[in-house]
Amino acid sequence: MATCETVAVDENGQTPKAIECRAWVAYAPKKPLTMETVIVEPPQKGEVRVRICYMALCHTDAYTLGGEDPEGLFPSILGHEAAGIVESVGDGVTSVKPGDHVIPCYQAFCKECKFCVSNKTNLCGSVRQWTGNGIMKADSQSRFTVKNTGEKIFHFMGTSTFAEYTVVHEVSCAKIREDANLESTCLLGCGVSTGLGAVWNTAKVEEGATAAVFGLGTVGLACIEGLVSAKASRIIGVDIDPSKFEAGKKWGCTDVINPKDHPDKSIQEVIVEMTDGGVDYSFECIGNVEVMRSALECCHKGWGESVVIGVAGSGKMIQTRPFQLVTGRVWRGTAFGGFKSRVDVPKLVDKYMNKEIKLEEYITHRMNFEDLNEAFDLLHQGKCLRAVLKASDP
Amino acid sequence: MATCETVAVDENGQTPKAIECRAWVAYAPKKPLTMETVIVEPPQKGEVRVRICYMALCHTDAYTLGGEDPEGLFPSILGHEAAGIVESVGDGVTSVKPGDHVIPCYQAFCKECKFCVSNKTNLCGSVRQWTGNGIMKADSQSRFTVKNTGEKIFHFMGTSTFAEYTVVHEVSCAKIREDANLESTCLLGCGVSTGLGAVWNTAKVEEGATAAVFGLGTVGLACIEGLVSAKASRIIGVDIDPSKFEAGKKWGCTDVINPKDHPDKSIQEVIVEMTDGGVDYSFECIGNVEVMRSALECCHKGWGESVVIGVAGSGKMIQTRPFQLVTGRVWRGTAFGGFKSRVDVPKLVDKYMNKEIKLEEYITHRMNFEDLNEAFDLLHQGKCLRAVLKASDP
Repeated sequence: MATCETVAVDENGQTPKAIECRAWVAYAPKKPLTMETVIVEPPQKGEVRVRICYMALCHTDAYTLGGEDPEGLFPSILGHEAAGIVESVGDGVTSVKPGDHVIPCYQAFCKECKFCVSNKTNLCGSVRQWTGNGIMKADSQSRFTVKNTGEKIFHFMGTSTFAEYTVVHEVSCAKIREDANLESTCLLGCGVSTGLGAVWNTAKVEEGATAAVFGLGTVGLACIEGLVSAKASRIIGVDIDPSKFEAGKKWGCTDVINPKDHPDKSIQEVIVEMTDGGVDYSFECIGNVEVMRSALECCHKGWGESVVIGVAGSGKMIQTRPFQLVTGRVWRGTAFGGFKSRVDVPKLVDKYMNKEIKLEEYITHRMNFEDLNEAFDLLHQGKCLRAVLKASDP
Repeated sequence: MATCETVAVDENGQTPKAIECRAWVAYAPKKPLTMETVIVEPPQKGEVRVRICYMALCHTDAYTLGGEDPEGLFPSILGHEAAGIVESVGDGVTSVKPGDHVIPCYQAFCKECKFCVSNKTNLCGSVRQWTGNGIMKADSQSRFTVKNTGEKIFHFMGTSTFAEYTVVHEVSCAKIREDANLESTCLLGCGVSTGLGAVWNTAKVEEGATAAVFGLGTVGLACIEGLVSAKASRIIGVDIDPSKFEAGKKWGCTDVINPKDHPDKSIQEVIVEMTDGGVDYSFECIGNVEVMRSALECCHKGWGESVVIGVAGSGKMIQTRPFQLVTGRVWRGTAFGGFKSRVDVPKLVDKYMNKEIKLEEYITHRMNFEDLNEAFDLLHQGKCLRAVLKASDP
């Protein structure tokens, strides 16, 4: 690696200083978040401090807050789907500068580790051991402290976007074009990208293929959008909440099924029958291990591939008879849809600007930074696709 | 389809008649086989009667005889790894004629069904519903009757090669060149082909890849042979019987491991540590669902692929944490190594004749038709790779 001579600098060209701002702190599982004034330290070497403009909620935030994440740390600042503007950068940061529009990416991309140089995966090994422990790589410390108590607060997924300012590793910070609306592009930080990429990158769905999508939330709808663009011939949406079917059809489902309407058959049996043997591809967008099994077993013998997208609860196991695999089904999974974050997220923004992918259509609620607990309630009630909260003006 | 005007004919150009010969009948699970004189009916439309010259034992025969196969039917004539010469053909048979050397293939290839026209699978739907029920397609009857009792005997896997004569569907009958030694080529009916194909067709292992093979029997050794020819950089053989390690090394293992030598760690932990993160590919050649899990979990995050080859007992389930898939591992299976039987088996014979693949080296015991129960004993004792029994002169 070439020696990097850039030095830390903020928006005013000065050495960055600590910032006081508001952030939502998760003190314990299953408790509402608490808004606190926090001190956000300056970015260290290889780090970027970002002013969050818009942030959205994803089920993974709720999953960790619900105590189901075995890696979940408390107290922490949750949030991993957001867009903002670089406020300052630490030493050695070259890919972004103050004022740049960025999307924090929980899936890093360092370009150099064995994962990043492989064309088979989008994982990255550069900062995982620190982000998994809620700290930053430069000094193994958090950058967040509660002002009133002095309590250190863990980072979450390397993003911690439920704050007015956050600090992320440079490798987790995708620079995007400035003419794109941050309120919409924030959704590319997780759910929409994941669904699209599961179809395009992980399953590599081909024209004319048939598919089933389990769970018609944002990720499932993004799968459907990916399937439509891949020219799938049949797209079967599955959900136990029939209120989701309208969106499913609007996004492009050719069929929608409620498993509760078939009490005498498993959903895989229903799908196998209606497709003369099963679908070519299936996508599990819920995080339920029983549904993951159904998704595998509704695939066609010989070639059907099922992609696990949802995140299951701690300790949960998937299972099936090995005969399902021996007779040609393939079981895969995906994280962030296989996109190499820092290079691919800007391309997704281009697609959005070219009207090739939807974003606004996923936003069902526009709220303010203060409304995060209410937004969690909406998520738990299944009443929203994406609630986007405004943290600051772009 | 063109109308087919060929008519049934035997080796002498006559209409085929019933044949009396010897066959080993499996009357009940877990009992020794009984040699009987059986009546083998003439081949019906689309069928071929084959004089078996050499037959080998495979663990799937033992599995069914052991009562573990939920589809196992009794009484039946087992056997699915053999080579012979066509004695007669039924109406409409065009791809083979009396006198042709053939390998019965439990995996059919009709060239016309949706599986056969797909380049994603080697399964075939043309006769499965009959072979799975131990009968022939033309009239849904068996061609085997015990002479003394008149009892009808089920077919097995569409092959039933533990007999001096058998009847198979034309779609299950691979014609091979006549200069190849049938004593050796009989092994291409299952185990060796399956192991080679799992590496070449199912996993598509690339040069420089690392791999682990669980179970160093014939299928496992054939995997190793396939890995050597694919130029894998590291081949780790795993077995709990250290007497298998000599063959493992001879075939090309770079490392051999006995899980019993690591009582404090799972075998997947051992392999992940010795390979800096796991292997690129793994192959389960045993049929043990716990080992299938180990085989998946010893694969490298991001891209490792595991292929289930072994056949597990009835009702057994594979399981893992979905996180294993979400972080990029792929779980596959294979049947007959992905080879399209009637077109690919002759090519494997060519490879054997060109000395590109081993066959004799797998034969540890040469026995006579009368010795089948002794051969099963050897198999159960783990004392043989392949025991080949001579049924008639080529």
